[in-house]
Amino acid sequence: MNKPRELNASVLNELVALLGDRISTNQGVRDHHGKDESSLPFASPQAVVFPLSTEEVRDIVNICRTHGVPLIPFGAGTSVEGQVLAVRGGITVDLSRMNKVLAVHEADLDAVVQAGVTRKQLNEEIRHTGLFFPIDPGADATLGGMSATRASGTNAVRYGTMRENVIALTVVLADGRIIRTARRSRKSSAGYDLTRLFVGSEGTLGIITEVCVRLHAMQEAMSAAVCCFPSMADAVNTVIQSIQSGIPIARSEFLCETTIRAINAYSKSIHPEVPHLFFEFHGTEAGVKEQAELVQAIATGNHGSGFQWTSRAEERNRLWQARHDTYFACLQLRPGSRAIATDVCVPLSRLTECIVATQADVAAHSATIPIFGHVGDGNFHCVVLLDPNDPQDVERARAFNRRLVERALAMEGTCTGEHGVGLGKQQYLQAELGEAVDVMRDIKRLFDPGNLMNPGKVLRVD
Amino acid sequence: MNKPRELNASVLNELVALLGDRISTNQGVRDHHGKDESSLPFASPQAVVFPLSTEEVRDIVNICRTHGVPLIPFGAGTSVEGQVLAVRGGITVDLSRMNKVLAVHEADLDAVVQAGVTRKQLNEEIRHTGLFFPIDPGADATLGGMSATRASGTNAVRYGTMRENVIALTVVLADGRIIRTARRSRKSSAGYDLTRLFVGSEGTLGIITEVCVRLHAMQEAMSAAVCCFPSMADAVNTVIQSIQSGIPIARSEFLCETTIRAINAYSKSIHPEVPHLFFEFHGTEAGVKEQAELVQAIATGNHGSGFQWTSRAEERNRLWQARHDTYFACLQLRPGSRAIATDVCVPLSRLTECIVATQADVAAHSATIPIFGHVGDGNFHCVVLLDPNDPQDVERARAFNRRLVERALAMEGTCTGEHGVGLGKQQYLQAELGEAVDVMRDIKRLFDPGNLMNPGKVLRVD
Repeated sequence: MNKPRELNASVLNELVALLGDRISTNQGVRDHHGKDESSLPFASPQAVVFPLSTEEVRDIVNICRTHGVPLIPFGAGTSVEGQVLAVRGGITVDLSRMNKVLAVHEADLDAVVQAGVTRKQLNEEIRHTGLFFPIDPGADATLGGMSATRASGTNAVRYGTMRENVIALTVVLADGRIIRTARRSRKSSAGYDLTRLFVGSEGTLGIITEVCVRLHAMQEAMSAAVCCFPSMADAVNTVIQSIQSGIPIARSEFLCETTIRAINAYSKSIHPEVPHLFFEFHGTEAGVKEQAELVQAIATGNHGSGFQWTSRAEERNRLWQARHDTYFACLQLRPGSRAIATDVCVPLSRLTECIVATQADVAAHSATIPIFGHVGDGNFHCVVLLDPNDPQDVERARAFNRRLVERALAMEGTCTGEHGVGLGKQQYLQAELGEAVDVMRDIKRLFDPGNLMNPGKVLRVD
Repeated sequence: MNKPRELNASVLNELVALLGDRISTNQGVRDHHGKDESSLPFASPQAVVFPLSTEEVRDIVNICRTHGVPLIPFGAGTSVEGQVLAVRGGITVDLSRMNKVLAVHEADLDAVVQAGVTRKQLNEEIRHTGLFFPIDPGADATLGGMSATRASGTNAVRYGTMRENVIALTVVLADGRIIRTARRSRKSSAGYDLTRLFVGSEGTLGIITEVCVRLHAMQEAMSAAVCCFPSMADAVNTVIQSIQSGIPIARSEFLCETTIRAINAYSKSIHPEVPHLFFEFHGTEAGVKEQAELVQAIATGNHGSGFQWTSRAEERNRLWQARHDTYFACLQLRPGSRAIATDVCVPLSRLTECIVATQADVAAHSATIPIFGHVGDGNFHCVVLLDPNDPQDVERARAFNRRLVERALAMEGTCTGEHGVGLGKQQYLQAELGEAVDVMRDIKRLFDPGNLMNPGKVLRVD
């Protein structure tokens, strides 16, 4: 790894001239920007800038390029694979002050936002329209960050991921060009899909400054359900069969008994400590009732019990808040821990086998590792707790993740369903995609010949 | 435009050694491969090859690259913007014999097919599974061709386009490398989205040889409906309001009175010659009934009348066959004509305005130009009939299309919703996307430094 160089005074002077007090070299500010939710070593930038516009981002890029200084885009700092760590030093571009919802087109079911707008902020600002933005990666991430990591979450089984929900992006390229990747129409076949090329590029090809996202009509009725199962396999099979039956489930989350125990402790809930499914159904009043009944019948056929459903907003929200707190609840199983949040995704037919084998791996190592996830997509997470100061503990956790990824790859799956590659998954990318990674490397070199855009992330080019 | 060069004997000899009798220089075969459904001048290749495998495509690419010979991939020849025309000569790679469905993964809701499999063939081969592949661009195109042009069709409003329904591609690159762009899981954040980069690249970045597509569960019930309207605006507003209400319409097609007249003549049907909407609803028995009732209420509020719906498969199929025959029915309005099939797509809120202005343009030019389309996506088509031997007629049709595209671009729309750029839309790409087109050009040069992969299409690099 290249050693971070000292910033020369000239870069700082030019940035100060551009930004005034919207640049900081304060150690606390730098350290805050040098960590994320991963268990990787912190790595602080040499300075942090807070632009307010696409044009300012362009000017920052131009200054940094001239001086050969790396640029790391930063949203809410909620990435889990080290995406925001300044492993080669440089300037962190904190986009959180670019937090304006620029336009809400109710009739078009879309909104244009600056990259620093968070998903909760957007949903708050559009609440009166009867529309909502469905992608929810747990944390209250920014839409720029979610685009950059191709995030998804619990609603993806029905509404898709960021890939399906970004209509267009404004991007500042390494050479200072500002491009808009698409128009605002819902479909287009006009040339190469630059939008999708930047979605998931983790700041390595350019800095996303504006995002046009799809919105969806809030359905007349939403109901949530919980159901207990004697085994993981029964729970997972219930979801698979529901999807194969064409039931348009909005959410279907699996939680193992360890996860439930963590949630009960964290959220003061009293779910029985057995494998669970949490569901959500969206539709008309009659429609959600019908969906719940169909799913209940499938669950019963898979030894499900204690099926409860509710359309009361308050109970629904409490349930999903508990689900979204899962990661933090799991961290509390061993206070003071950090964690590797694994993220494999496999074809649905292999999901039960993959989870059961992973559960056996957990048992074989006498570990306390919660397993939960978006089973409708074949995507699940383990929270592998570790003490970052205990090298053996870190290695044990990494080895577990390695075995899990190898298991998923052997089942035609991917090492990352939604967290992205960052630093943590690079070692698996080649095994997963072979020569396609060389093509990605060529694209990286084309867009960023100086290797200054979030260098060292996704793939190495030096 | 570069003049096609003569093929040298060595190229032919090497291709014959590789392919035996699966290469043809027969004039009829070449001419068949030198035309599509556009009104552009025919342009035949110097030879046509019929590979059977990805490895053969690679060997063909390697031979052609060595000799500097252009390669044009060819599926069913149903493109409408000149995508398959051999405007610089070279070898057409006809993939129609690569027509094997390689795997159907029922439990995973996906299928892996060779590029030459057509959508109807796939649906035929998976009928017993209860699954279906929803994308239907009218013609029985190949899945390779549909991927290459980012096709969609009548179901896109509910099921998405090829962009959302391709999971992974196998692609032969210009340098002879074979890559697979993704694993088979339903989600992944593993690196740059090469799948989406090739979807819509029209053979200019590589040749797609295998496609992994999503399948969808056939719903318990499907019903179709027709409804008449006094004006285009009323019909279009009905669709927009239905979508904004969150009704999960599977299809919503607008047809103007001229289109209805053409269909009646072609399909011997007796629809009243006024603007129509054709709908389809997918769901449970109760669900489709509910959807139809909700849409009928919205239609009535927009002066709709004669609302009829049916769940009988035979009537449904007759309706959609008529819709799919629209293009050919319109050609019969002036037998012997060819046509420009326009393809703009605008944000939903501008659709009524765009169609009404287009209707006024039709009236001002006393022309017979049918207007119909996928109004749920904001995408509509005009069939502009022309006599290819009458330069004035050709220019009149092109001018109409130019005005239409300019109108759509002024409304934040795109020049092509689903047909692609080919030769016909290149002049509009720069106006639509500005500097982003330069980035596309850089990508083209990276992937195809010799400009041999379907040269002259999508964008010019020389």
